[in-house]
Amino acid sequence: MRTLVGIDPGSRITGYGVLRIEQDEVRHIDHGRIRAGSAERGARLIEIYHRITDVLAEHQPHAVAMEEVFMAKNPTSALVLGQARGVILGACIARQVEVHDYPSTQIKRMVTGDGHASKHKVQFMVRVALELTETPEEDAADALAAALCHHRSLGSQA
Amino acid sequence: MRTLVGIDPGSRITGYGVLRIEQDEVRHIDHGRIRAGSAERGARLIEIYHRITDVLAEHQPHAVAMEEVFMAKNPTSALVLGQARGVILGACIARQVEVHDYPSTQIKRMVTGDGHASKHKVQFMVRVALELTETPEEDAADALAAALCHHRSLGSQA
Repeated sequence: MRTLVGIDPGSRITGYGVLRIEQDEVRHIDHGRIRAGSAERGARLIEIYHRITDVLAEHQPHAVAMEEVFMAKNPTSALVLGQARGVILGACIARQVEVHDYPSTQIKRMVTGDGHASKHKVQFMVRVALELTETPEEDAADALAAALCHHRSLGSQA
Repeated sequence: MRTLVGIDPGSRITGYGVLRIEQDEVRHIDHGRIRAGSAERGARLIEIYHRITDVLAEHQPHAVAMEEVFMAKNPTSALVLGQARGVILGACIARQVEVHDYPSTQIKRMVTGDGHASKHKVQFMVRVALELTETPEEDAADALAAALCHHRSLGSQA
């Protein structure tokens, strides 16, 4: 049995999703959104660190999958997003959880078959794949998609 | 007695400096540079995390002072720099050390009297202030300057 956590880092909202893999069967355990929007920037990062640490402590994952970011709209948002990613990476290192980065196109292709699928399609396919009764919100769906991508990438190597 | 660590985060080279404050006397303890340049990006961040953790474990600072970054040249470098800052922040949170951010202009003004001083002038003034026998390299000088700025900012509030 393996537990995977997917994380979709954002400056204001960070999504996370938890999957359990048992004999190649994927089970949805949890997902959610960390909103750290209203606080001052430094406090937001500390909030993200602690909330991610809580998720890691609760679910004890074997690995974390994150969307790799190569580009951002502008230097300011890149700096903010980079810091959110860095602090999440720090939380994972502190708990000795390995982190795997996947390009957005690979995640989308693995989950929808199309590397340039819309956010909507990702949400829909995540819901179908995990047999969820409700469609997860964007950030949580992206996080679940990252975890699914990691699982399927490992499977294709085997 | 208080110990302060100043950090100048960089994507390839991160400077750090350690000061000890005893009855308002500032003593230079250590400074150095963490080069994580040749490794792949994820590995560089992990290296920075561990090296900063080592510095914090060795010197047990009461606070860390870092230069605040508002702007970067382009989105790509902003993302890389942001992640370095984030991972350093993560290392500080993990050890429960508080982090204080200072704008570059405030650090330069506190150390040289001029908010727009050259890198060279900062290096020279840090050397003079701390009675060093050699001029510290840029990144280490910036880190020591951040620590000095934090100390002097606290002093001016008293």
